[in-house]
Amino acid sequence: MSPTSQLSVQALQWTGHSLKVLDQRALPQTIAYDEYRDAAGVAAAIASMRVRGAPAIGIAAAYGVVLSAKQHYPQTDWQAAVGRDIEQLAASRPTAVNLFWALDRMRGLLAANPADPVAALTELAQTIHADDLAANQAMGERGADLIGKAATVLTHCNAGALATGGYGTALGVIRSLHRRGQLLRVYADETRPWLQGARLTVWELAQDGIPATLIADSAAAWLMKSGRIDWIVVGADRIAANGDVANKIGTYSLAVLAKQHGVKVMVAAPSSTFDFSLENGAGIEIEQRDPRELLADCYLHEGSLVGAWNPVFDVTPAELIDAIVTERGAVTDPGKHGVRSLQPC
Amino acid sequence: MSPTSQLSVQALQWTGHSLKVLDQRALPQTIAYDEYRDAAGVAAAIASMRVRGAPAIGIAAAYGVVLSAKQHYPQTDWQAAVGRDIEQLAASRPTAVNLFWALDRMRGLLAANPADPVAALTELAQTIHADDLAANQAMGERGADLIGKAATVLTHCNAGALATGGYGTALGVIRSLHRRGQLLRVYADETRPWLQGARLTVWELAQDGIPATLIADSAAAWLMKSGRIDWIVVGADRIAANGDVANKIGTYSLAVLAKQHGVKVMVAAPSSTFDFSLENGAGIEIEQRDPRELLADCYLHEGSLVGAWNPVFDVTPAELIDAIVTERGAVTDPGKHGVRSLQPC
Repeated sequence: MSPTSQLSVQALQWTGHSLKVLDQRALPQTIAYDEYRDAAGVAAAIASMRVRGAPAIGIAAAYGVVLSAKQHYPQTDWQAAVGRDIEQLAASRPTAVNLFWALDRMRGLLAANPADPVAALTELAQTIHADDLAANQAMGERGADLIGKAATVLTHCNAGALATGGYGTALGVIRSLHRRGQLLRVYADETRPWLQGARLTVWELAQDGIPATLIADSAAAWLMKSGRIDWIVVGADRIAANGDVANKIGTYSLAVLAKQHGVKVMVAAPSSTFDFSLENGAGIEIEQRDPRELLADCYLHEGSLVGAWNPVFDVTPAELIDAIVTERGAVTDPGKHGVRSLQPC
Repeated sequence: MSPTSQLSVQALQWTGHSLKVLDQRALPQTIAYDEYRDAAGVAAAIASMRVRGAPAIGIAAAYGVVLSAKQHYPQTDWQAAVGRDIEQLAASRPTAVNLFWALDRMRGLLAANPADPVAALTELAQTIHADDLAANQAMGERGADLIGKAATVLTHCNAGALATGGYGTALGVIRSLHRRGQLLRVYADETRPWLQGARLTVWELAQDGIPATLIADSAAAWLMKSGRIDWIVVGADRIAANGDVANKIGTYSLAVLAKQHGVKVMVAAPSSTFDFSLENGAGIEIEQRDPRELLADCYLHEGSLVGAWNPVFDVTPAELIDAIVTERGAVTDPGKHGVRSLQPC
């Protein structure tokens, strides 16, 4: 049974023999699940952004390894075939480190030569999934504790149930605030070019009965100037050892603007998002996506004078962040302390 | 003959008996002109944003008064009928002051009781149109003089030929830089929710052979951090006596971000954009447009938990602006000096 079968919003459903993926490109108009029975399908679902969000990508990839093992075990040389599938899954998107973290765990288990690799891998993928959900719930409570009073919150992109194993990172904090009666209002950036805020965040909040107000990305500064925002709460795709955070393009902008307007910035992310191999954010590969995400068809002809620059992520320096919240604990003022205190021994 | 008949991009064409308005909502896919023979039609064209951009709105409204006079003169009580049409035109959009400025000029001419009011009003409307074009060309040169060397420019919304009598305010500066061989590159914000940058700015630049690179609005900060932007150049919808500038939502955001990244900010606008009756920007009415510009249809039902906050403009404090350029002259550091030096005697 899927670890999230009791939730109202589920990006991923494990059936025991396939992975059902909610096609997030069709939301909010259409709620449709695609069903995958091999790793190549899961890799394509990640690359095409049917499933997106750093933790959800990691979980989907873990199930992709299970599907690979189901397909190839116990054929001759099944380990090599699974290894190739893992490589394909790893190549699906470059920035979110949770993908590599999940694949490393699956690879480690394979290397340990379990007697029944399919059963062992299935158990690990479901553990990764269930642990992420539990981590989100812990982070939600911790983040709400840190805010500590009634607040108006602005969020960017979708760091919700749809982006994770369930409950959400940034939206987990917002859900926890709402349960406590401390959520005065939540504003959501549209988040161009994919409109994750407009299509996903306000939709999933409404599914849980939480009213939300959508704004154009460029209206965030004017909203902050009006004094209506207390906290910006976002997720993360990768966090370096000094606390620099890669997240959806526009996060850096919000953090600079927040500092100028006395608004606090919280990043909520599971520890699978940390990349302690990177001293700072300069080493994080920033995915550039297809200019067609921004350009009308009439600009795509040969010799067109119109191009696009379409980075999907940016890096927010730790100095602009007030708190990084994980399931293991929180670091306030990461610009002073870094986040090594959250590193496992 | 229309004062802009020689230009490649014309938002407005005066035929002598009607006003042809390029439907900017259909660009860049479709180039289609709607033809209006009365003031009510012109008011609707402004309210529905078939024509937009502060100077173009003023010019269109002036022609609307001509059409009203053609329709009603010399019927009994034609002055009252024209007066009502002027009120309707004035109510079409609230923020751009050029609208009220143009209508005041037309109203003043009517009050002077010319022998042939239709001929006199036609002449004045065409003068307003031709003067705006000439002002843009002067501003373009002056703005390029101020920049004074090869530069990479970022612009927001569309302050181009499509928003004016021709040539453009911000895009006039960019056109002049290009002619001088000093435009290293121009980036254009998409400018949600209407996508004036994506649909209009890059289109009209390409019409003139100027390559342009489109970005998501929220990518501007990350672009500035990369060190690739020298100047932000934008237009204005209203400028108060202290130099505060109302312009498309997102301009304030860019100006705050520019200050943090050592990028300079130029506002280019004809003197018809100045409202010396306002000491500062606090008195400028900010138009709120329909939440449906942001919301998917599925959020519009009764009892929906999803709403939107959709201000169309924001106000940038003079302190964040390095230069305000008009056809009469330029003010640098308006935060220190205000813009009263540009006020006519």
